[in-house]
Amino acid sequence: MNARAPGRPRILSRARIVASARHIADNEGLEALTVRRVAQELGTGQASLYRHIADRNELLTLLADDVAVHLPPPKDGPDPRERVIGQWLNAYDYLSQHLWAARIIAEGEHAADSAAAFTRSAVDALAALARVGSGEGGPDQAGIARTYRVLWHLLLGHLLNAHPVGHAHPVHDIAVEREGAGPAKAAETFRDDFAWALPRVLEGLLGTHAS
Amino acid sequence: MNARAPGRPRILSRARIVASARHIADNEGLEALTVRRVAQELGTGQASLYRHIADRNELLTLLADDVAVHLPPPKDGPDPRERVIGQWLNAYDYLSQHLWAARIIAEGEHAADSAAAFTRSAVDALAALARVGSGEGGPDQAGIARTYRVLWHLLLGHLLNAHPVGHAHPVHDIAVEREGAGPAKAAETFRDDFAWALPRVLEGLLGTHAS
Repeated sequence: MNARAPGRPRILSRARIVASARHIADNEGLEALTVRRVAQELGTGQASLYRHIADRNELLTLLADDVAVHLPPPKDGPDPRERVIGQWLNAYDYLSQHLWAARIIAEGEHAADSAAAFTRSAVDALAALARVGSGEGGPDQAGIARTYRVLWHLLLGHLLNAHPVGHAHPVHDIAVEREGAGPAKAAETFRDDFAWALPRVLEGLLGTHAS
Repeated sequence: MNARAPGRPRILSRARIVASARHIADNEGLEALTVRRVAQELGTGQASLYRHIADRNELLTLLADDVAVHLPPPKDGPDPRERVIGQWLNAYDYLSQHLWAARIIAEGEHAADSAAAFTRSAVDALAALARVGSGEGGPDQAGIARTYRVLWHLLLGHLLNAHPVGHAHPVHDIAVEREGAGPAKAAETFRDDFAWALPRVLEGLLGTHAS
């Protein structure tokens, strides 16, 4: 929007810049996201943007933080197993809508301290599940942290392979191919795989059993 | 090497081009790999290279195939559990030496039919383990294929997060940070995590138990 357009001119803010950048990344992938492109979207000049952000890197950091802050809490309810499984499935679905963010996190370019609330709540929910499932003989704090990391990597691996970002070619997965399914089915298959694996992996890692 | 240099001039071949490109990718990351750079390494002109390869994309495909062909077979030995676990740990260590290849595969830009031998041997080894561990009640062929995919994604997730490729900044992992370990420890921690998780995840997915 241009300030000279009819109506009240909107004030440029970091929040508006981040919202516009997220829209571009969600719809066109990270490659399309440049400061010039965001300026176009907002109907302003690049110089105006540089009064709010230092460079593209700062923009990416702000974006990744914005996604990380909104990672989901454990699912509501009394059952600790359902709380854990629901949180991770929701995280999968949420990140599959913002894959460029998953890729930023995996590439380790930008800190995501903003994910701390997710980490804390996920670790607490895992600890509650471990107490119910295996009592005193369950994993200690280090084992819970390790379980958290393994689940996070399981999620990342499924997401990053299932949904290549910013590339025109469909994913080619050797095992999906082997089953005879076309590449277009990959994302759907991997979501199913993750949902199938999650309770089984939890049982293996925590030494608990399904109730 | 220049053809006018002393000694017998070496003949430019696809194999020499791929070997040179792999050397560059292993040492400097995928970003450094250009046709111009490979030509420099081989002491020849870009035009000479273009008589053997169509473009950078074909070079990447050849490279990924080359890595995929050399993915390890199941570990030698009579114990089916050790055969499976050894194969996946070896695959992890092998790919951590060629991370750019893991990234090519995950980004789905290039087919890796050459990994078919790895897939086949891994699926067969998993089926043998499932038979021993759970007899007739074990997973069917679809369950084995699914287990293979989950292990592959578990491996990819650990690798891609642990070893950002082509970026100067160290990985920032929220859970490693939480434990107080510095980012430099991340790759080592994730290798340990993978080795710790593998038997437990297998048990959960296949419904078998450690002997």
